[in-house]
Amino acid sequence: MSQLVRVQNFMVSIDGFGAGEGQSLEAPFGHAEPRGGRVADLPADLASWAFATASWPNRTQPGGTRGLDDYFVRDFAHNIGAEIMGRNKFGPQRGPWENLDWTGWWGDTPPFHTPVFVLTHHHRPSFTLADTTFHFLEATPAEALQQAKVAANGRDVRIGGGVATVRQYLEADLIDTIHVAVAPIEIGRGERLWTSHKDLLDRYHHESVPSPSGITHLIFWRR
Amino acid sequence: MSQLVRVQNFMVSIDGFGAGEGQSLEAPFGHAEPRGGRVADLPADLASWAFATASWPNRTQPGGTRGLDDYFVRDFAHNIGAEIMGRNKFGPQRGPWENLDWTGWWGDTPPFHTPVFVLTHHHRPSFTLADTTFHFLEATPAEALQQAKVAANGRDVRIGGGVATVRQYLEADLIDTIHVAVAPIEIGRGERLWTSHKDLLDRYHHESVPSPSGITHLIFWRR
Repeated sequence: MSQLVRVQNFMVSIDGFGAGEGQSLEAPFGHAEPRGGRVADLPADLASWAFATASWPNRTQPGGTRGLDDYFVRDFAHNIGAEIMGRNKFGPQRGPWENLDWTGWWGDTPPFHTPVFVLTHHHRPSFTLADTTFHFLEATPAEALQQAKVAANGRDVRIGGGVATVRQYLEADLIDTIHVAVAPIEIGRGERLWTSHKDLLDRYHHESVPSPSGITHLIFWRR
Repeated sequence: MSQLVRVQNFMVSIDGFGAGEGQSLEAPFGHAEPRGGRVADLPADLASWAFATASWPNRTQPGGTRGLDDYFVRDFAHNIGAEIMGRNKFGPQRGPWENLDWTGWWGDTPPFHTPVFVLTHHHRPSFTLADTTFHFLEATPAEALQQAKVAANGRDVRIGGGVATVRQYLEADLIDTIHVAVAPIEIGRGERLWTSHKDLLDRYHHESVPSPSGITHLIFWRR
């Protein structure tokens, strides 16, 4: 079985946004445009379907659903040996690192459990939190992928996001399979994955699977 | 994470049959009632959706689909540490074993890759084919499950079928999660899992997920 490059459980709004505007330490997903008198509650509005499942990696209480959504959440880690993420998924700070004591948004037990390669123009030393090791790379998508594939040791590589990183890998045509979960909200502006997923159909087979939870799961795999 | 007892990728017709009548060495799934002038082609009519996927364990050629059906096929092995099957799934012979050289329907590399416990009233010695070891037990469902859980070493136990074995475990109320794939054919008579899956709804949450392939995936998990 060959090593796949996968986007897994990537969450966007109906209008294709993965995050709002103005991402900051306090608001990792930024602020979303008011719609119908209400500001979207991010990331909860995008991710509550996943929080509800039995397999959600950060679940603190027993229970949770084991329906269709759980199959997708479970696949987040299944046969994954490494992740590649953009710097914005690691933390809100831009430019040279100012505080190496701050070790990212992911807490003392990050939900990755594999090596993670963070794309950045600013070097910092690797470090390990529980069973996740973060490495910091200035590299092209293809170069970073080559390192991640070695680290994954035969298992698959997940392109973890955010939006800019997924777009970069799509443009470099380096992704084999994609799972995007579309939540029934509009965000209006911010970090946009696509205007329409139909742009991918020349390169990928596609299925659209509505879940009883209200989420629509979009699946793509190479033609 | 607790050890689950799972039915996974169990395939039935719209009218609830997992096999036709008259199972034999040459016809492991028996013969199905003629419908509209055509005898059902078993197991192909029940399983062709799974054969088409990239993750089908007996796939001999590269390729295959990676849509919704593939998520289910992949889950057949995911975190499974042992299987329990009925004697009819192992082979067609009934009564005392006549030929110990015949090692079942599953070829030299069975698709289980774990210990398999075969429920039978007739003892025979354990044996190993590739990475699958078959054990033969005269035991109640609960006793067999206890042995399988130990062998699974913390991972889940799959109740592999056939129909009679799944029914036995349902009656003993020992199953945590169920995935049944319903194919759009009628079989008419033979080994019937249920007259309606609605009989399960007092004990299980339920989702019904139509796949673009024409299969309907039924998912159940304990209330």
